[in-house]
Amino acid sequence: MITKHQQKYIQSLHNKKYRTEYGEFLVEGEKGLLELLASDFEIVELFCTADFLEKNKIKEAVTVTSQVQIEQISTFKSNNSGIAVVKQKANLTPKNLEGLTLFLDNINDPGNLGTIIRLADWYGLENIICSENTVELYNPKVISSTMGSYLNIHCFYTNLSDFLKNWKSPLYAADLVGANVHKQVFEEKSGIIIGSESHGISESLKPFISQNVTIPKIGKAESLNAAMATAIILDNIFRDV
Amino acid sequence: MITKHQQKYIQSLHNKKYRTEYGEFLVEGEKGLLELLASDFEIVELFCTADFLEKNKIKEAVTVTSQVQIEQISTFKSNNSGIAVVKQKANLTPKNLEGLTLFLDNINDPGNLGTIIRLADWYGLENIICSENTVELYNPKVISSTMGSYLNIHCFYTNLSDFLKNWKSPLYAADLVGANVHKQVFEEKSGIIIGSESHGISESLKPFISQNVTIPKIGKAESLNAAMATAIILDNIFRDV
Repeated sequence: MITKHQQKYIQSLHNKKYRTEYGEFLVEGEKGLLELLASDFEIVELFCTADFLEKNKIKEAVTVTSQVQIEQISTFKSNNSGIAVVKQKANLTPKNLEGLTLFLDNINDPGNLGTIIRLADWYGLENIICSENTVELYNPKVISSTMGSYLNIHCFYTNLSDFLKNWKSPLYAADLVGANVHKQVFEEKSGIIIGSESHGISESLKPFISQNVTIPKIGKAESLNAAMATAIILDNIFRDV
Repeated sequence: MITKHQQKYIQSLHNKKYRTEYGEFLVEGEKGLLELLASDFEIVELFCTADFLEKNKIKEAVTVTSQVQIEQISTFKSNNSGIAVVKQKANLTPKNLEGLTLFLDNINDPGNLGTIIRLADWYGLENIICSENTVELYNPKVISSTMGSYLNIHCFYTNLSDFLKNWKSPLYAADLVGANVHKQVFEEKSGIIIGSESHGISESLKPFISQNVTIPKIGKAESLNAAMATAIILDNIFRDV
């Protein structure tokens, strides 16, 4: 059973305002819950169906409830497994910035951010440094579209120009004009900055860029979205590893 | 002014059933409408705001209406420009299958299909051959996520096993196990088949595959989505052109 009070509380976590105020977020659906349970994130409360509980060996305390009730509080249209209220991690400056660091400037589509986190995880990055106007990591659409990769990647939100003032390595930027990404030699310790599809890289960040890189176009499409550009650039950076 | 009858008709085109029955679909928003107007697609009816009409020189017959009315019939949350009812093109077997042909097997996410069409357009492909259970091209989310690239790419829906019985060129398939895409030499006239993230390539199509290719993984993510895999594979195929 979910009480009215719990229901209201969980629904409030659909909104950024309350997620930020309470420092908590939601993880939903079977796959998401199983990955979460195997991680070091702190679960505040876990609601699940009897089916989910029976199918999976869960050591944590749970509240068993019906699918109908789960769906009332879930952001998923259908959810026959459960939902967890989880503690957000502190927004800490990353300690280790060896290898490649990904910088995101004003990525506002949740699906794009989730996909980029997943790509970063595929290519073994540790950190993503996000501008303050990049969509919030704990947005339910971001979490679900990372397919669990938010557990492996540390996202740090900060003022990018301030952060880059102390950045000593080469900084590449994805742009429609620049060096051919197929020919560019990338330094091992470096950064790559991806801007939003509609606005590109912010003017204030341009002084920090050492080299623009571009993905050669053969056909007619005007542009690629931020996640596609990230996919192609990361694959090019890591193709000789 | 939009009549009640028109309103009902346009809203019916939000559903596949009626799009298929009437052979029509919707194009929405400023950018989409301007690209459509410059194309050879046949516009059945165009509704737009006075602002949109004033800002753009439109030769076609239009019905001027308010933003409020446009938004009542649009699938977009906000739409201050307009909406067009457009004739679908016939589902014709492509004539020219030179170069690379992309095959999609059971891609059911509209955003993924739209993104893949956009990628195909970026890399200059002409045709995409879609399995019958791939999401419909004329789904409003597919159309909007192609960012206009549906105008440049011919999508043909068919039974893929029947189609592939007559396919004489190499057919590569994206898979989690296969030849390294960074090292694979792709024949100029060939096909690449992308399956769904959750189900992979259908068993019935496997006999037609000449070579599986895979994207080397360095980190921990379990998989990449179909659109990201397509981005990386197309970039690898076309990197020496």
